[in-house]
Amino acid sequence: MVNESINDLLPFLLKRENVARYEEGVVVIGDRRKYPFEKSYVRCANVESVARAIEDMVTQGGGPSVAAWYGMVIAARQAEGKKPEERLEHLRKAQARLVSTRPTNTALARRLELAMVLLENALEEGKPLTDSLLEWIESRRDQAYEDYAASGRYGASLIDDGDGILTMCFAETAFILSLSMAAADGKHIRVYVPETRPYLQGARLTAPCIHELDIPVQIIGDNMPAYLFSQGKIHKYFTAADLVTLDGHVVNKVGTFQNAIAAHYHGVPYFVFCWGLDPTKPDRASVVIEERNPDEMRSCRGHPTTISEIEAYYPAFDITPPHFVSGVIMKTGIISPYDLVNQNNETR
Amino acid sequence: MVNESINDLLPFLLKRENVARYEEGVVVIGDRRKYPFEKSYVRCANVESVARAIEDMVTQGGGPSVAAWYGMVIAARQAEGKKPEERLEHLRKAQARLVSTRPTNTALARRLELAMVLLENALEEGKPLTDSLLEWIESRRDQAYEDYAASGRYGASLIDDGDGILTMCFAETAFILSLSMAAADGKHIRVYVPETRPYLQGARLTAPCIHELDIPVQIIGDNMPAYLFSQGKIHKYFTAADLVTLDGHVVNKVGTFQNAIAAHYHGVPYFVFCWGLDPTKPDRASVVIEERNPDEMRSCRGHPTTISEIEAYYPAFDITPPHFVSGVIMKTGIISPYDLVNQNNETR
Repeated sequence: MVNESINDLLPFLLKRENVARYEEGVVVIGDRRKYPFEKSYVRCANVESVARAIEDMVTQGGGPSVAAWYGMVIAARQAEGKKPEERLEHLRKAQARLVSTRPTNTALARRLELAMVLLENALEEGKPLTDSLLEWIESRRDQAYEDYAASGRYGASLIDDGDGILTMCFAETAFILSLSMAAADGKHIRVYVPETRPYLQGARLTAPCIHELDIPVQIIGDNMPAYLFSQGKIHKYFTAADLVTLDGHVVNKVGTFQNAIAAHYHGVPYFVFCWGLDPTKPDRASVVIEERNPDEMRSCRGHPTTISEIEAYYPAFDITPPHFVSGVIMKTGIISPYDLVNQNNETR
Repeated sequence: MVNESINDLLPFLLKRENVARYEEGVVVIGDRRKYPFEKSYVRCANVESVARAIEDMVTQGGGPSVAAWYGMVIAARQAEGKKPEERLEHLRKAQARLVSTRPTNTALARRLELAMVLLENALEEGKPLTDSLLEWIESRRDQAYEDYAASGRYGASLIDDGDGILTMCFAETAFILSLSMAAADGKHIRVYVPETRPYLQGARLTAPCIHELDIPVQIIGDNMPAYLFSQGKIHKYFTAADLVTLDGHVVNKVGTFQNAIAAHYHGVPYFVFCWGLDPTKPDRASVVIEERNPDEMRSCRGHPTTISEIEAYYPAFDITPPHFVSGVIMKTGIISPYDLVNQNNETR
């Protein structure tokens, strides 16, 4: 499958050019804060504004890495106008600023380091910085969409005609491609999307993306999955993962775990899309669950839901043990959560 | 325990006089729509405005029955000013209007029918209508608070020093009394309250009520209970029930069921406060789950959470089977869900 036909299967928000793109010195980033109420972009003409856009949550998921790469293209173009001895320092400053936008996201730092290696080589070899980096980024993105398509095809193979599907939060490109491919194969499906409090990724991102593909979709409350299981409405449960440990524990948006318990009780399999493995995360003891600002649990889209003196607690993720996981979907196949340690598939 | 000391253990919202009261021709109803942002009342000087207040969700839980009874006091006072042959018809019209406010709430209809029987007897015996009815209502309420206290005492006996407690939605007087009594007994507890989307009873009613009692309480998302169980934060799970079938199925706010599954998986007992049994509901097949307006799942306190063309689904309740229920707390004791059919404890 070529990249253009993959893009055709994706909704507006996930189309390659709408995640982020580079246009003559400007990084154009799809604004996921305003979607689905508006389809708009944030335009960044320098590294600082790219960094601020990432910090301000203009994009999320895979978006920050792509935006940061294009931020480095801006830095590379500026470096080309500087004295040779100042170029490396200029690039390193840009890299540091962009890494600082997501202190706990090791994937972003790793990907910027790879871009930096490319730029250092180009500097040494006297190659043009901007063009070399842009070419490298586009080739990396080509490969990423091929990998999404491979995972998406495995996901689609698990979907049967007539299936009701539960998800959680925003499982992004590989999951959405699975649905799109299953629908293209003539399978009739219906997707149930928990709204995903407090940030509402389900209501704001997932459900509108699926709706745009003309696949039947319904938003439900985060308190409703077990009732839907008990009604026999759900046949498969799919999520992405922020992290899968080498021993098969799935770290994902809080709520994923209780849906997995309810799925198991009702005999429904749970599949996880995993982009790659992190060799520094062998088990659940190596995972620290981020606790976010409790103010977000006392409000909804900025409007208070209770009075401010009431305490709140907002753990952002939870951990699902491997015995609740029927398969981990990677670009290489549908892997048992107990076989990940034997896979050679690091996050790139 | 006398009624005044019970009232002292209750927060503002649940104090007897703040649920609803009768003041010289006016029914004063505590406004639960504005709480906790405002502590205010709706004042109703005729039957129609009492009916509208109930329809407009000024009060909920046990509140509508009490407000409707006082609405009948207004009707009784008006009847006393009419010709004897017109009195019964006037009372029956008021009763019908008040019953129509909650077409599916059989408890409200049953309680109004009892008030009507009292009024018919008073008419026949030539007794004063208003005073007879008011005296009967206050005596019924006295008994209700004695029963709440009995249930509350059983609930408190299940709470240990150091317990973390999960609830769902707004479990009202018996549950809040349990917490209040446990705290008065010197037990240190902490309560976790899911916000309960879409209507936010947990965030708006339950958590502020518990906070007012100086008991530590935290609001969490409806997607978070299983994560808290996995952290060992929760030792008991308590809810109320809209209905318990004679074979022990618990019908309560949607989300109750998935919390019960997660509690069971983590070895945490689940207890249900039950006001009484309905002999017309033998099993889960006799229960119809109300589906409410999906608009409520696309908004939060009136503000949209997604675009209106996305479908949503809002089943208001779910059903927890008896093997997840450790005990049903009634005024007579902590009953096995498998022994309810042997209890003689109809809702009054």
